[in-house]
Formats: sequence, C-alpha cells, structure tokens
Amino acid sequence: MASNSFYAVIAGVGAGTGRSVALKFAKTYPVVLLARKPESYNDIVAEIKAAGGQAIGISTDLSSADAQASAAETIKKEYAGKKLAAAVYNASGGVGRKPFLEHTVEDLETGLAVNARGLFIFAQTYLPQLLESVDASPAHPPTLIVTGATASVRGSAKFSIFAAGKFAVRALTQSLAREFGPQGVHVAHTIIDGVIDIPRTRAWPVNDGKEDGKISADAIADSYWYLHTQPRSAFTQELDMRPYVEKF
Amino acid sequence: MASNSFYAVIAGVGAGTGRSVALKFAKTYPVVLLARKPESYNDIVAEIKAAGGQAIGISTDLSSADAQASAAETIKKEYAGKKLAAAVYNASGGVGRKPFLEHTVEDLETGLAVNARGLFIFAQTYLPQLLESVDASPAHPPTLIVTGATASVRGSAKFSIFAAGKFAVRALTQSLAREFGPQGVHVAHTIIDGVIDIPRTRAWPVNDGKEDGKISADAIADSYWYLHTQPRSAFTQELDMRPYVEKF
Amino acid sequence: MASNSFYAVIAGVGAGTGRSVALKFAKTYPVVLLARKPESYNDIVAEIKAAGGQAIGISTDLSSADAQASAAETIKKEYAGKKLAAAVYNASGGVGRKPFLEHTVEDLETGLAVNARGLFIFAQTYLPQLLESVDASPAHPPTLIVTGATASVRGSAKFSIFAAGKFAVRALTQSLAREFGPQGVHVAHTIIDGVIDIPRTRAWPVNDGKEDGKISADAIADSYWYLHTQPRSAFTQELDMRPYVEKF
Amino acid sequence: MASNSFYAVIAGVGAGTGRSVALKFAKTYPVVLLARKPESYNDIVAEIKAAGGQAIGISTDLSSADAQASAAETIKKEYAGKKLAAAVYNASGGVGRKPFLEHTVEDLETGLAVNARGLFIFAQTYLPQLLESVDASPAHPPTLIVTGATASVRGSAKFSIFAAGKFAVRALTQSLAREFGPQGVHVAHTIIDGVIDIPRTRAWPVNDGKEDGKISADAIADSYWYLHTQPRSAFTQELDMRPYVEKF
Repeated sequence: MASNSFYAVIAGVGAGTGRSVALKFAKTYPVVLLARKPESYNDIVAEIKAAGGQAIGISTDLSSADAQASAAETIKKEYAGKKLAAAVYNASGGVGRKPFLEHTVEDLETGLAVNARGLFIFAQTYLPQLLESVDASPAHPPTLIVTGATASVRGSAKFSIFAAGKFAVRALTQSLAREFGPQGVHVAHTIIDGVIDIPRTRAWPVNDGKEDGKISADAIADSYWYLHTQPRSAFTQELDMRPYVEKF
Repeated sequence: MASNSFYAVIAGVGAGTGRSVALKFAKTYPVVLLARKPESYNDIVAEIKAAGGQAIGISTDLSSADAQASAAETIKKEYAGKKLAAAVYNASGGVGRKPFLEHTVEDLETGLAVNARGLFIFAQTYLPQLLESVDASPAHPPTLIVTGATASVRGSAKFSIFAAGKFAVRALTQSLAREFGPQGVHVAHTIIDGVIDIPRTRAWPVNDGKEDGKISADAIADSYWYLHTQPRSAFTQELDMRPYVEKF
Repeated sequence: MASNSFYAVIAGVGAGTGRSVALKFAKTYPVVLLARKPESYNDIVAEIKAAGGQAIGISTDLSSADAQASAAETIKKEYAGKKLAAAVYNASGGVGRKPFLEHTVEDLETGLAVNARGLFIFAQTYLPQLLESVDASPAHPPTLIVTGATASVRGSAKFSIFAAGKFAVRALTQSLAREFGPQGVHVAHTIIDGVIDIPRTRAWPVNDGKEDGKISADAIADSYWYLHTQPRSAFTQELDMRPYVEKF
Repeated sequence: MASNSFYAVIAGVGAGTGRSVALKFAKTYPVVLLARKPESYNDIVAEIKAAGGQAIGISTDLSSADAQASAAETIKKEYAGKKLAAAVYNASGGVGRKPFLEHTVEDLETGLAVNARGLFIFAQTYLPQLLESVDASPAHPPTLIVTGATASVRGSAKFSIFAAGKFAVRALTQSLAREFGPQGVHVAHTIIDGVIDIPRTRAWPVNDGKEDGKISADAIADSYWYLHTQPRSAFTQELDMRPYVEKF
C-alpha cells in the first residue's frame, strides 16, 4: 500500500540504522535522506530507486538552522504537494569516551550541536508539517521518532558529553510527546542499547563475538515502522532494544 | 503461516487485553486461555474455533501452584507434542484505590497473590518449556510477555497495594529478562498507561470522553505480537502504551 | 535536646544499620528495638542504657500482624504517654541470589513476608501515631524511614525474589509519601547500594578490599537522622548511599 | 570549626538557594560567590562579613570559559594558598515555559549556555582543585554539588528547552560522580521539586497558599551542607526535596 501523497524524512543516514530505516519506509513512502555527505546516502538512494521506490538525498549539516531550512526548501520543490507521514531523527554527535578533564568546551559544543540543536531544528522544521498531516486522513498517525542510546538514561564515567547530549535529546523528545501527542502526532524515543551490526563494527569482539550479539539495523527499522503504525489510542513513547546477550 | 507444532498460553483473559491477545496469537498458534471462570474464556474459544483456529480454555486460579500445575497437565494432554512459542501473563489483582489505613493485611495478600505469586508460578511453569523451544527452530524467539500498568513505575497515593504488586511484577520480569534473555528467551514487560476500551469502561468519562481516549485492546495485542516477532538481536525489554490524549 | 515526651521505634536491628540507627536516635529519644531474637537487640539496649539513654527491645516476628500488635501493646505500656517521633523500617527478607528455576513458592512467600507484608503492617501500626504527633509540636516532623537496596530499583539476574520484595517496599513507601506527606508525616526511602561494613562482612573482598569500600552503618544512621530533621518545606523522599569506590 | 585553609565556591547566587548556601558554608569556610551582577552578591558578602566570615563576590558570566578562568585567577590571588573544600553549581538558564514552536534556536542556546556549558566549564575549573584537596586531610571529602529541578527527570509539555538543559546537567553530574567518586571527590545532584520561598515568589499562590508550601532555601542549604559532610563510605549521589504538600 505505497502512498504517493505522503513522504518520510530520515535525518542521519549512513551504514546502519538510518539506511535500514530509509529502505523500510521507502517501501511505502517516497523518502528524503539527510546526511552531511552525499557518500552517506548515494548508494541508498540508488538502491531504493532500483527497487522501484522514490528517494532523494540532501547534503545537510543538521546542526545548522540554515542548512535544515535549505533542505526543507528542496523537499518542498521535489515533493511538491506531498504531506509528511514520518520524520526520523537518527543523527548523533561525534564525541566519544574520554576522561572529563581532557575534553574541551569545543567538544561539548560539538556534542550538543548534532544531538540537542540538530533535533531542536529538525523538530521545529517538521512538526508543523506533521500537524498538518493529522487531518489529511493518513493511514497512520504522523510520527516523529528519535534515536537514543544507553547514554540517554545513564551518565557513565568518561561519557560526560555523549550522555549530556543524549539526555538532552530524550528531554526534548519527552516534552514534545507531551505537547504534540494530544494534537495527534506520535512522538517516540528509542533506547538502542548495544552495538549496531554494520561493516565498521563487524570485527569488534562485542558480547564475546556471539552470533546476533550486535543489533541488526533492519530489526531497529522494523521497530520504527511498527511505532509508526501504532494507532493513536495506544502510542508507545519509549522502547529499548538490545541483543539478547547484552548486559544491562 | 499458522504453526501447528507450537502453541501459546495466555493467562488472564476476559473482555479486554487477554481476549485481543488470544485472538491475535490464535491466527498463528493454537492457544490456551487461562482464567478463573469459564465465562471469561468460553466465547473467545468459540470465536477462535469459528475462525478456524484452535483454542482451549482452562479454569485456573493463577495464584495457586496446584491449579497452575493442573492446567499445565491438561495442556500437555490436549496439545501433546506441541512446543511453547509464547506465554503471556496478563492477570491482575482485584485491589484498587483505597486510603492506606482502610486496607487490611488480607487486601495485601490478595494484591500480591495474582500479581507477584501468580506470575512467579506462571514463569516457573512455562520458562522451562520456552527454553526447550529455543532450539526447536521457532519462527520467532520464544517469548514471555507480562502486562504492567502505570502503577508499575509509580506508587500513587491510595494505590499502595496495587503499586506494590505491580512493582514486584516488574522486578520479577526484569530479573527474568536478565537471566533468560541470554539463553534465547525474550522476556518483555509492558506499561499500559490508561484505561482499556472495553464494554465495562465505555461510559467512563476518561480524557473528557475524547475519541480514542481509551486504549484499544487490539492495539495492545498488536504490540504483543510485534514483541514476539522481534529477532534476538534486538529484544525490547519494556515499552509503554497510552492514548494520545492521556496525561503522563 | 533529649526529648522524653517522644519516642522512636526501629524495626530490624542487628549488627548493622539497625544498631547504628538505634544508637543515633537514642541520643534524643527513648527507643524501641524490634527484632526476631533478643540476641539481636540485648547488647544495643544495654549500650544505650549505659550511655544514659532509654531503650526497650521486643522480640517480634515483623511478618506477623499479631506479633506487631503485641509489640505495640507493650510499647503503649512501657512508654505510656509518649508520642511517636520516628519509625524506621530496616528489616529485610532472607532470600538471596539463586537461579529463578531453583526457587520455590515458599521462597517467594518468605521474600515478601518481611519486605512487603512486614512494612505494610508496620506502617499501619505506626502511621496513626505519627499522624497524632503532627499536632504535638514535635521538634521535627514525624518521620517514617524505610531502608531499600540496589534491588529496589534494579531486578538483577538471579535476584528475582529479593528484587520483587524490594520493589514492592519502594512502591508502598512512595505511595505512603504521597498520601501522608500532605498530612505532615515525612515518609522517606533510602537506597543502600553496597555492602554494610559489619563484623560479618569484614573479610569480604568488596571493592578490592579498599579502605571505606563498604558502607559505614553509622553514616547511614547519620543520614536517617538528617532526614528526620528536615523541615516539612523540604522533605527528601528518596536518597541513595554508596561507597565512593562502588560501581553503579 | 571554621577552617581557614579551605574555601568554598558557589556559582549562581541571588535571593534564593545560592544565598542560603553561601551563608551556610561561610560558617565554616571563606566563600566565593559567582553571579552575573554585583547586586546579586553584594548584600550577601556584606552579611557574611558582618557575621565575622570571609567572602568575596566576582561578577562572572558562567557560560563563558574566559569569564570563569578570570574568576579562578581572582580567587587564586585573593585566597592564595587555600584549598577547595566545596564547589556548588546553582546556576540556571533563563528559558521558561513556552510552546515549542514559539522557541527560537537562540532560546535553546541560552538554555544550554548556563545549564550545560556553564556547569561543564565550572567542573573543569574546580575538579582539579577538588582532586588536590583529597590528600590534604580535609574534614570532609571535597564536594561538587549541582542543583537540579523537576525538569531534571521529566520533560513536561512546553518545557522543552528547560528540560533539555536540566537533563544534560544531570547527565554530566552522573558521569562526573562515576569518574571522580572513586578518586575521592563527592559529586552530588539534587532535584529541587517545588517553588523556592523567596521575596519574588512570596505572593505566588503555590500549593493553595499553604504554610510551608514553598521550599525554604535555608533547608536546601542544610541539605547541601549535609551532603558535604557525608564520609566517603556513604556518598549520596542524588536526592530530591519538595514541600510536604507538593504534588509529585
């Protein structure tokens, strides 16, 4: 039941969750892929088109309000007349584990730029469109899904900046769920608790190298699609996902 | 893709979640319905059979180890050779809102009997079967799903006993997830945050009587089925569900 | 500023937290010590008296409503005319780590007897007295303090019963705080996250045997006294305590 | 037991918590008060001096690394040779309740500037000093206390930015507790759940205008002092405080 009058936008696509989510949602909707660099989405766009779907990729610095506004303009032209069915924010900052005193203020800015500010701008850009879609008889309630991590609920030692960003993202998402849920927009947050199984992580000895010890990005995409299809009488605001062998 | 070599057992069926879960799982598996009184499951069993499915109902006091053992014996005879695909514990005690000092110790026993002890016995009865199913190439990982409520994460005033039971159930489920997840059994807990939309609640002025202001039991059942189908690389341990207009 | 018109009752005294709390509160109030066996409180009672304080010990099976009622009768006689300033529930069940399938239903009953039922009875016994004290111009708001543990907020693998009991206790306490706080009674829950430093644990190689790697029972007692002295404009409902080197 | 070889620094002083904390800690230590404007600390400094204590105030934009570095330089000169006993971060951003779509990116920056970045810089500035104090035989473990709010654990509707900042602050603090606790520095976070009772809020009809329905800033200061005096065998990482009549 592909729908041509609605589209989906996925911010933060690459080799993992973003790619799988794009492929999944593209089975039903024309999709827009946002990533900093074309090489992050070119192959995915091609793959979707080869399978008969519609997709456009737009190079976007998600931490920049101007860049996101420009992307939205491009979408308006390319997908003129289409309403927004789902917006997925899957971007994450590039600040990892480090002793606190070795971080710089610039690290903090970097950590908050994509996580907190990027989501903030993304939500301000697409929530008005999601609200418009509520009355357009969509098959499923318009949906905003935000990807979180273990660090969304736990400030571990030496993950100060990463946790600050992810906690902030969770706060924003929770607040948006409480403000826009009653208006008919489904706002959900996921806690991805484990390492995604992608080429880059394949050799990592996670969970003693056990089979399925890393998270399948396709399984995450299935969950995101499931969230999107929930009726408004039973919205899930938050769910976790982790490999069966993950310690938690 | 109905499967005749596996079955599902649902404890606590009536007009709401249990009924919908039974109908949903019966599309794929022969099901067993456990409830205190036959009138709670008779119509559902008939409905499933009329639709071409298989179902048996067994009158069971879930708080009694003997009664649950007897039910398991009956299942063994009726569904000889079938392995267990999914076990759903949806039972709840009958102790509601009351000033703490008006409760009796008997109220507490009642509150803990079905919630804590019932789940304990249920898990001890069916986890060994779920473990056996892990190696039987099931389509989906063997699953134990437990129904929680708002009171699972919040001890509200005058809900002391209800919250004690629900917190205990959540603790048990979390502990089981950590022990049996790594062995391949998916253990999940749900937080149903709202009033279920069933005949008994139809006239309740919940959420100002707004449309879809109560939770659709069918939507809950869809979520339970979705949990059951998650691959072991991405198990969800806990999710919430509430109507879009519910305060939280 | 010892006060002879008020008393304190501490349930669950032995070598650790209970003893320290009793000694601490006995500096201000006559105290009552409840424990199953006289050898658990005899020395503490003697120590308090030697220091010029007042103390009585009463052998009490806390899981029994009759036993607690009998203890309350004894208190009424021994401390006639005194009002209750503070009640501390520090008892814990005797069910530890074990694979879930090796537990019996009796284990569960044991686990819930002291934790859930014991606190329930204790709260029903002493909350009416605490309410009466609100208007008796006490130096500090009447207080109910309940001891929790790591397992109060985390259902770890193989700690199913212990966690069920502790979660239930936390639920009860939270609910009581919300019901009795507005009436002027301070209800607080503590999360003791670590091993108490007592003779029995002295040789345990906790936290690599580091100095102060176990929790000082006196430090816990100081916290309980601090909670008791908080004015009603700033009640703490929950706090954690752990050694500086404890992983969490 | 005033100590002249140690000092305390309090960031974010004004009419409420900061003032009371400064007065409380000034009974034992020379104190430094940081606030954007002199009128926020001038009277407090005078009050402390009049009572025989030592205090200096420094105008500081806490969100600026340069400003905080400059303040630290001033402290080094004024309190030459003194070691740091306690650092309290009590600053909060000025972004309140507003529909999400009416916020600007500048609001977000403002919200994160004082909350997240300000604390980050403060912690980087004073943690090295706190670490040095560990071996200087302080009466109490060196302490970093951070003030949080209801919004630290709950993203309410229309409090998106405030919650994002407070969640981020909580994440930072939690991460610092896990990294610096084992090194002997006590890092604690408080959840102030209610309206502080200060001249500006006196007329607010909070909690139906009930007596003690707002939080006493002095009571908060007592809790901060209590946290500071906890021995390292029993550090509290987080505690909440609210008026007895506050809904939660």
